[in-house]
Amino acid sequence: MRVRDLGEFKLIDRLEAVVRLPASSRLILGIGDDAAAWEPEPGTVTVATTDCLIEGVHFDLATTSWTDLGWKVLAENLSDVAAMGCRPRYALIGLAISNDRALVDVESLYRGLAECGAEYECAIVGGDTVASPILALHVTVVGESLPAREETPLLRRSTAQSGDSIAVTGPLGGSAAGLRLLQQGLRREAPGMNREATRPWRLPPHASPLIEAHLRPRPRVSAGLALVEAGIRCAIDVSDGLLADLGHICERSNVDAEIDLARVPLYPQAEREFGLEAATLALSGGEDYELIAVGLHGRLAQASDALSRRGEPALTIIGSIVAASNQGAVRVRDAKGQLLNVEQAGYEHFVAVRP
Amino acid sequence: MRVRDLGEFKLIDRLEAVVRLPASSRLILGIGDDAAAWEPEPGTVTVATTDCLIEGVHFDLATTSWTDLGWKVLAENLSDVAAMGCRPRYALIGLAISNDRALVDVESLYRGLAECGAEYECAIVGGDTVASPILALHVTVVGESLPAREETPLLRRSTAQSGDSIAVTGPLGGSAAGLRLLQQGLRREAPGMNREATRPWRLPPHASPLIEAHLRPRPRVSAGLALVEAGIRCAIDVSDGLLADLGHICERSNVDAEIDLARVPLYPQAEREFGLEAATLALSGGEDYELIAVGLHGRLAQASDALSRRGEPALTIIGSIVAASNQGAVRVRDAKGQLLNVEQAGYEHFVAVRP
Repeated sequence: MRVRDLGEFKLIDRLEAVVRLPASSRLILGIGDDAAAWEPEPGTVTVATTDCLIEGVHFDLATTSWTDLGWKVLAENLSDVAAMGCRPRYALIGLAISNDRALVDVESLYRGLAECGAEYECAIVGGDTVASPILALHVTVVGESLPAREETPLLRRSTAQSGDSIAVTGPLGGSAAGLRLLQQGLRREAPGMNREATRPWRLPPHASPLIEAHLRPRPRVSAGLALVEAGIRCAIDVSDGLLADLGHICERSNVDAEIDLARVPLYPQAEREFGLEAATLALSGGEDYELIAVGLHGRLAQASDALSRRGEPALTIIGSIVAASNQGAVRVRDAKGQLLNVEQAGYEHFVAVRP
Repeated sequence: MRVRDLGEFKLIDRLEAVVRLPASSRLILGIGDDAAAWEPEPGTVTVATTDCLIEGVHFDLATTSWTDLGWKVLAENLSDVAAMGCRPRYALIGLAISNDRALVDVESLYRGLAECGAEYECAIVGGDTVASPILALHVTVVGESLPAREETPLLRRSTAQSGDSIAVTGPLGGSAAGLRLLQQGLRREAPGMNREATRPWRLPPHASPLIEAHLRPRPRVSAGLALVEAGIRCAIDVSDGLLADLGHICERSNVDAEIDLARVPLYPQAEREFGLEAATLALSGGEDYELIAVGLHGRLAQASDALSRRGEPALTIIGSIVAASNQGAVRVRDAKGQLLNVEQAGYEHFVAVRP
């Protein structure tokens, strides 16, 4: 049996079984959530998460600048910490790179990392740089929860309950739409052209929020904290796509989910550019780095109000959790309440391809 | 300017300048030591370290099994935590791998990780698995210091002082000797032979401690803790080679070091196999994962006694720190006190090659 015969998520389950250690009284969450979590001292929770990005698999330097790449790789990890309801604090950067790369490019990469770190108050405190035939980036972020009172102040995947509402922190599908525009722009360019210089003028003028969503995603750290403060205990970030990520919650919580497609917030620019397909991108596009939060309607409303008061986008309720009829199924209904035939597709390594 | 024109250590300095953030009152050590360190709560110190390993650069599956590879990649990170005088607690594993690899090999890799984690009480709590054309492993370990009393209980690179003694926790050069034996064994093998099955019987019978030193290094976690307890505050682990790693201490502490070659402990098996070259391997071979500790002679003796009482190897004094005459020079003297002409060579990414 080869890795491709299992796919990413079953592979993780197999590997989790191999490394399983005796339970530690201080370990709260191991493999299987957005981040691992433990209690170094009673009253505080530390979380840690890690992501690998490989050139040609996760990013393409034809459609991203080095600075944007630096921003995005850190932002992805900060998003995992946000999805735990924690505050990111420290980042370690692993860089595997060929020794014939230009120093100016590597410095641009770290400038993007530093910009993102400064914006979210996450200090880059260490790392490793090694020679490698292909470019690989590996970021680890350590974060901290709000002070623990009675109940562990974390957003998990496993705590959704029948009757809960499902909310998202912002519009979806923008990143996938932005990537598509970048790829279209690329095909129109003459080979050998300096893309860094010409790219912005070759894209439709209303495209910039989509490009921005793809190249400079904004992790929802303050939304994660507001959710925890309002008593919400279940969330995930949208990295693989709404259906896939909500599917992870359903699977871990042993519930089903129902989404009203008409309530899923879209980017108006994506609707203008891609019409009805904007909804497909919102369901399966991935890399949005908005949070999906699940909990009692009143608590979600409370978190939403708190965010609005701070000048941040309000939450949007998009559906509800129901008892499991199937193993962690996510169903989508149209405006008339009819079930849509959508494949629960998202990005999975080793098997799937991006839409 | 390309990455190769700078080399690893100058590159790190450049990147450190790019990512420098305002000092945080809780951050103790950023980029430039074996691990980053911060104080989540007064009285406790958390450390975090990360390492990338790339197939063909850091390891060769012709001379290591998947299980040994798993052990070694975790052991290298545990060694960085040991070199801070801390206890490793949690590990995150990033695996970038082609989807046509056999599942049984990936499971063997994680079995090695789990064996090493169990031995050193470090739980594997998370990670990331991604598709990649080349095999890359990326490990992050978070550790904790002994409780902080007056002085921060860490072993740093920057705290060596003139008059200090230099000690090592065990024999050096074994890993490089073991690698050489493995490579020689490989050249004698017929192509296509099942190396996993035949390798052990094709090597000289007295070679096993050297092979063991290369494939299954043992990080000196308890030695690091004993050093801190005895009041030592300066150490590094031998990953790039004694001269190179002691050079890092000298550079960061602005001192010189003098080594008595006759006092550097060697593996008898390496002397038998490689004669006088065993000393060269001990000076520059690298990947020994012993600790180099620097401090007052009496405190080193105290740490050594404590280790002996626990049945662990005693420390060996190999030289002393002197005032800087040069920028962080390491000098080596022979048994008659004559200065030897040794190049201060060790492993550096992007410029050097292993001996």
